[in-house]
Amino acid sequence: MKDDFPDKKRVEVCPSPKQFELYQWDFDIVVAIDVLRATTAICTGLDFGVKKIIPVSTLEEAFEYRRKGYIVGAERNGEIVEGFAFGNSPFSYMNKAFKGKTLVLTTTNGTRAINLASKTHTVVVGALVNLDAIIQWLIEQDRNVLLLCSGWKDKFNLEDTVCAGAITEGLLATNKFKSDEDSTISAMFLYQSARDNYFSFLKHSSHRRRLKRLNLNEDIKYCLTPNQTDIIPILRNGALEKLERDDSK
Amino acid sequence: MKDDFPDKKRVEVCPSPKQFELYQWDFDIVVAIDVLRATTAICTGLDFGVKKIIPVSTLEEAFEYRRKGYIVGAERNGEIVEGFAFGNSPFSYMNKAFKGKTLVLTTTNGTRAINLASKTHTVVVGALVNLDAIIQWLIEQDRNVLLLCSGWKDKFNLEDTVCAGAITEGLLATNKFKSDEDSTISAMFLYQSARDNYFSFLKHSSHRRRLKRLNLNEDIKYCLTPNQTDIIPILRNGALEKLERDDSK
Repeated sequence: MKDDFPDKKRVEVCPSPKQFELYQWDFDIVVAIDVLRATTAICTGLDFGVKKIIPVSTLEEAFEYRRKGYIVGAERNGEIVEGFAFGNSPFSYMNKAFKGKTLVLTTTNGTRAINLASKTHTVVVGALVNLDAIIQWLIEQDRNVLLLCSGWKDKFNLEDTVCAGAITEGLLATNKFKSDEDSTISAMFLYQSARDNYFSFLKHSSHRRRLKRLNLNEDIKYCLTPNQTDIIPILRNGALEKLERDDSK
Repeated sequence: MKDDFPDKKRVEVCPSPKQFELYQWDFDIVVAIDVLRATTAICTGLDFGVKKIIPVSTLEEAFEYRRKGYIVGAERNGEIVEGFAFGNSPFSYMNKAFKGKTLVLTTTNGTRAINLASKTHTVVVGALVNLDAIIQWLIEQDRNVLLLCSGWKDKFNLEDTVCAGAITEGLLATNKFKSDEDSTISAMFLYQSARDNYFSFLKHSSHRRRLKRLNLNEDIKYCLTPNQTDIIPILRNGALEKLERDDSK
């Protein structure tokens, strides 16, 4: 938004996985965002001592990992998939039995977004629960950043965009970053409308309505409460693990 | 946004042609929107007496029509394509020599959006210049409406989304329509931020910056001034023509 200084890094918002092919070029780091609820759950799990979370895109892979003896979570359309013990509720991951373990997770949107960028980019996981931590870490990296909203089945969604707008604003405030895309400007406007009360702003969002029908109001409140952890999940060799700050560069 | 009454019609915003396949189902009427500048130019041309405008997607088709003797406009990346006399500046269409004529037009985004929906939907053309007319006509139709933003090369853009948000708000105000999609909610928020001063709100939009570099500020001002005409261009047999209000049903 500021004048183009050639030494500034770019931060842009990709509105949905469907658009990733149009946006992926020129970026080093991809932040995968699925506020309701996959990336929130991943941050929570690693914060509560889970060692690694392997994100898989298909139910077939999830069943295969389960056959091999892994602890596997699976969610589709907001609900736990039949035959699995848990899905993507953050509260499921506050489980002492998971401490030190490697879990496997597949969700409708979030794990797909994470895997989409895994071959070509450094992938970290963002949500409102680790908002300030992710902003601070991205500032330290000094690289081009693409904020990839998981959306809903390839469509735009509101809560991921608001989170992406919040990260964008945090980066642009340093004057070390610039943005060009209308999707990025739009995300910042939506964030500015939402920042004083995420819960109220998002009350009409399609996915919140979807989850409310499933009696997941406590999940929603948790997912929309910023800065509950300073965990930054990073994808390494196909698994998300806690980034130790001394390996942040 | 209101409670779901089964007799309400839907109005939704499709953020870009890239997403059309995800949104197209269940809609009867598609409003193609390319505020800067194709759909504004089309409204202006029909308002100034052009009989028909044939929208074509490729330059190959444009050259072919020119060989056949048609008057052809062609724009790519904001500029008139070499070898053509005009592009998509609305002022080009205020031309007495065009009165009663059939023109052909190809543009980077707008004509592609129009043709995308032509086989499956009733297609009309919307812009800020015919905002209230299109809202009023859509209310009279009592059918499901998809507002298709032309975007910029398959990406989201700000000015088309703001226009779509304005149309949405006009329809929802009647209480005869409902919306479900987050893209629609988002467009309304952006419109509410923009409504008091489109020119100022859109000053950072990527396409406005693009056109400014081409010294097209007068075009931009024209395109962002609402309600300059009550023309509704409708696609019939591959050509856009002025909808006569007695054939509006």
